[in-house]
Amino acid sequence: MSVFRPVDKQAVGAINELLEPDNRDNRKRYKEFLRDPLFTPRLNIPFDEERDLALERLDAVVRNKFVSVYDFERNPLNVIAAHEVSGMVDPSYTTKLTVLINLFGGTMINLGTERHRKYLDAIDTMEGVGCFGLTELSYGNTAIEMETTAIFDQKTREWIVDTPTTAAQKYWITSGGLHAKFCLVFAQTYVNGKHEGINVFLVPIRDYKTMAVLPGVEVREMGHKMGNQGVDNAALLFHNVRVPAENILNKYADVDAQGNYVSSISARRARFLMVADQLLAGRLCIASMCLGGTKTVLATTFRYAGSRRSVGPTGKADTPIMDYQLQQNALVPLLARTVILNLGFNYIKYRWANKANYPADEIVRLCCVIKPLITWNFENTTSTCRERCGGQGYLSANLFGLNLGFSHAGITAEGDNSVLMQKVSKELLAALGAKRVVFKAVPRGAFKSADDDASLQALIHIREQGMAAELAKRMAGAKNGQAIFDTWMHHESDLIQALAKAHGERISMEAAIEAVASLPAGHSATLLALALRVWLLETVHADAAYFLTNGILAPKDALKVAENRAKAIHELSADAMTLVDSLGLEDHMLHAPIAKDWVKYNERDNLGELVEPKAKL
Amino acid sequence: MSVFRPVDKQAVGAINELLEPDNRDNRKRYKEFLRDPLFTPRLNIPFDEERDLALERLDAVVRNKFVSVYDFERNPLNVIAAHEVSGMVDPSYTTKLTVLINLFGGTMINLGTERHRKYLDAIDTMEGVGCFGLTELSYGNTAIEMETTAIFDQKTREWIVDTPTTAAQKYWITSGGLHAKFCLVFAQTYVNGKHEGINVFLVPIRDYKTMAVLPGVEVREMGHKMGNQGVDNAALLFHNVRVPAENILNKYADVDAQGNYVSSISARRARFLMVADQLLAGRLCIASMCLGGTKTVLATTFRYAGSRRSVGPTGKADTPIMDYQLQQNALVPLLARTVILNLGFNYIKYRWANKANYPADEIVRLCCVIKPLITWNFENTTSTCRERCGGQGYLSANLFGLNLGFSHAGITAEGDNSVLMQKVSKELLAALGAKRVVFKAVPRGAFKSADDDASLQALIHIREQGMAAELAKRMAGAKNGQAIFDTWMHHESDLIQALAKAHGERISMEAAIEAVASLPAGHSATLLALALRVWLLETVHADAAYFLTNGILAPKDALKVAENRAKAIHELSADAMTLVDSLGLEDHMLHAPIAKDWVKYNERDNLGELVEPKAKL
Repeated sequence: MSVFRPVDKQAVGAINELLEPDNRDNRKRYKEFLRDPLFTPRLNIPFDEERDLALERLDAVVRNKFVSVYDFERNPLNVIAAHEVSGMVDPSYTTKLTVLINLFGGTMINLGTERHRKYLDAIDTMEGVGCFGLTELSYGNTAIEMETTAIFDQKTREWIVDTPTTAAQKYWITSGGLHAKFCLVFAQTYVNGKHEGINVFLVPIRDYKTMAVLPGVEVREMGHKMGNQGVDNAALLFHNVRVPAENILNKYADVDAQGNYVSSISARRARFLMVADQLLAGRLCIASMCLGGTKTVLATTFRYAGSRRSVGPTGKADTPIMDYQLQQNALVPLLARTVILNLGFNYIKYRWANKANYPADEIVRLCCVIKPLITWNFENTTSTCRERCGGQGYLSANLFGLNLGFSHAGITAEGDNSVLMQKVSKELLAALGAKRVVFKAVPRGAFKSADDDASLQALIHIREQGMAAELAKRMAGAKNGQAIFDTWMHHESDLIQALAKAHGERISMEAAIEAVASLPAGHSATLLALALRVWLLETVHADAAYFLTNGILAPKDALKVAENRAKAIHELSADAMTLVDSLGLEDHMLHAPIAKDWVKYNERDNLGELVEPKAKL
Repeated sequence: MSVFRPVDKQAVGAINELLEPDNRDNRKRYKEFLRDPLFTPRLNIPFDEERDLALERLDAVVRNKFVSVYDFERNPLNVIAAHEVSGMVDPSYTTKLTVLINLFGGTMINLGTERHRKYLDAIDTMEGVGCFGLTELSYGNTAIEMETTAIFDQKTREWIVDTPTTAAQKYWITSGGLHAKFCLVFAQTYVNGKHEGINVFLVPIRDYKTMAVLPGVEVREMGHKMGNQGVDNAALLFHNVRVPAENILNKYADVDAQGNYVSSISARRARFLMVADQLLAGRLCIASMCLGGTKTVLATTFRYAGSRRSVGPTGKADTPIMDYQLQQNALVPLLARTVILNLGFNYIKYRWANKANYPADEIVRLCCVIKPLITWNFENTTSTCRERCGGQGYLSANLFGLNLGFSHAGITAEGDNSVLMQKVSKELLAALGAKRVVFKAVPRGAFKSADDDASLQALIHIREQGMAAELAKRMAGAKNGQAIFDTWMHHESDLIQALAKAHGERISMEAAIEAVASLPAGHSATLLALALRVWLLETVHADAAYFLTNGILAPKDALKVAENRAKAIHELSADAMTLVDSLGLEDHMLHAPIAKDWVKYNERDNLGELVEPKAKL
């Protein structure tokens, strides 16, 4: 007998509409397309083949128009949706996709002008694959200090792009290793001997027809990584490479006919920040693909937990491991948290896609907070699920290793998570100070009982507000640059990180509350409300020390939270498969043998592969 | 200027003697041997080459006598020491080593008799590589339910070994894929039609000369995994394979000349448990190799944190990232915890190696608790360090991916960590009930101040004792088998896990207190005491909710713990390199480029490799 109640298809449909609210036809079409055996994972294949395969998959997805660079203009949410579906199946082509569509294409749309449109057409046909050269070996979070130069030659009206030092090589450049014809190179700009800050230049790096690397361009393939093995990452060096004047992305800066540098934004730093804001979309793309990966991991793990049997009351191996509290307490909160973050993410991406209607600084804050929360949750979910699947979790065929590597890439890409969290807290304090953010009035005494959802929700507000007030107070004592740096970087690190997390969690909670309220009374509403309740209890329980230390919870309340948490987890366990199915994975997208009949999979010599193995030697 | 104080070589020596107290000459000789380029990691190599390389390294280590199967009889601590050194450099050959020396060799020493000694000689010459067939596809933690059979044929005086179902295939068998000539097969034993429980049989699986797989044996290579890629894991199936009567490991059971089954231990289950206890040494081996891996990760990360620069007070990229509290708070507690667990491990392995002098149940408990604590710490350390090394952490050359995969294998191998923790709590309660364990008298009011180490130490005792009393109370209500199962498996899972952790941490703490006391007054003593203090404050801080909820700490005490924690971490940061160097890694054993001059490493096209790259295509 199953430990799970039968799946309620109606509830699956209703909850899935909340989790995948936009571009549903395209998602459906894309998911159907993934039946193509091209997308069946291949585990033990040579490095070169992995990268060929990633290109082949990318090519199929782009040419079949599941996503287009022009979506940024006509349907930005589809860019994000396509990333989620892609992330459910393969991190490598998905990573190449995000660089192609968002970092390369999106940057050209946003910073280029009419003269760059032809390059956009070539993205959608896959004829003009491009890459994105921002990070340098010694300049990651400090990209503004980059050393690559672009010097304008007045005589020839060309930009001379150069890598002056080893430290300045462009590093980690996705698709730079093999497949890109162009690179958007970020460089310190000099015109008439004057430093004009950082601009972006379109630099051809390979011959359009032969793919031979062009003179002056040096490509160093970065080799083996802990994940995303199909991505052809490169270090790129430029040795006085010349490109025409018009190759500067010139929406905000250009050289005029007289060879003068003209810019609509005067301050160099402000202009760079505008460039950097194009990375915001990148953070949403990464969050979206990592959310997709998280869902695959969860669906695989819950299915196995229902079919794997271990010791029962009589000592026989007759009890599904999902029956154990150990398994429930480990897995169910991860499922609940993923659902709540999914709803928070939807709230955020909607604002980003309709940015004209919302304050710019709010969008920055939201995009910066959700990428860390989702990618950390992905890492934690994958690591825990791997462990709770035991030895099977270790086989590549079950895809935990693939997704663990994927999650780590997500944590670091487009800004180290912890560094982004610092930015979130900084911007939040500034917005509070300027009254651009005004917190909902929730008195410290709003908590009544751990039996009461409204009370638990109040705690999430109280925590954020208390932390913000505390950090503001501590920063108020720092009067000059050195003191501010000291307080921020040497003394308040834990509080800064905690505040940003509390902020992102509060926003996600509010989105989840709204989602529950949007459902008609019935099973889907009670199930989603239960997931929210599990998340609330888990979150308060995990941060109980904060609430106890600050006198917000009494010891007896904390004990009640722990008790209610265990009960809610147990209650949700029985209905978990309905929630799991609502995540949006179709059966054919779950390739892990443990998500299906894994004894049958082991009837034949499978060589650890998912495609039919070649004849054995 | 470095953020670190200069390394104090005298303190390095003194602390290292505590961390690596035994077999120091052999460790030194082994570490010197690792200068051989054979041990330079190779990252992007074909699957088959990885496995050849693991064998080649194993062969070099065994033939050069850094460890011998006879160490179990004359110097058991050297088995453990050799695992630690091996784990510092390569998980794959180390995994093959532990199966060869401990699981295959150790089991034959402990369960075999004189007639099996010849196989031991062949281990030390690498001529008779063997593997260990316990786990089956559907029986991991429930190995006692295994289905493989060994039926005695009276006519030929042979055992007929058979795999009756798909579920019964021996699974994950290290060295079974390519290199083993023998397998120790665990099987349900039948003599004269009577089931005699599980025994162990030495079954040749490959021809001694040609290495051809023998008739009736089916080898299925398991393919790609998330780590330990050089290990040739196999699923093994036996189709009525016949072996002579003497191939049963007959220390406790045999067939006599009349074909009767005779056993010195009557109960089948008791005999199986004796067999299972041979896995205890395996847990120490895994803990030891994972401790080695943890040290490599830490040494790499701390070195990079001192050389990687990011934004400073003036906005320039001029400040070593180790200067940030973010980095210190993330890394320093991991270093302290690793040192404390190392000292706890040494205490435990000494008892195991001198088992005649200690109660058997104590040794079981100790071995079962330390493997989880060390392997979880390895996973957490590697994951956190990877993240705090940013993009560089993602390159295979920096060895985080290798070690992350290694740590996950450690978490699952020789018993899932959480399942072992259940066993620890169960045995501890039983020992307490029988007064075989009597806790040190530490009153609940022993905590005076967070400024006082003795007070913090008291908390570690109080927590363990409180949890044990609480769990005993809850179990006391369960009167029959079903009720006990329900309480244990459905209600008290969190407390069971927490108690085992509190127990293992208390034991490690006591070992660390003794280690500090053993040092003469001076820098080494103050430094080790500071590491212990960091560990204490971190541990109490992480579990603050427990102490607050149970009225052991007042809110103001918890705040003081947090404050002191930050101070102690900052203080230890400056001296971290002395502690890091005392872990025992020699410079030549640190292969990660970021542990050295990583800009120089990037001067040439390195292809992501550590050996000189082949000419580029």
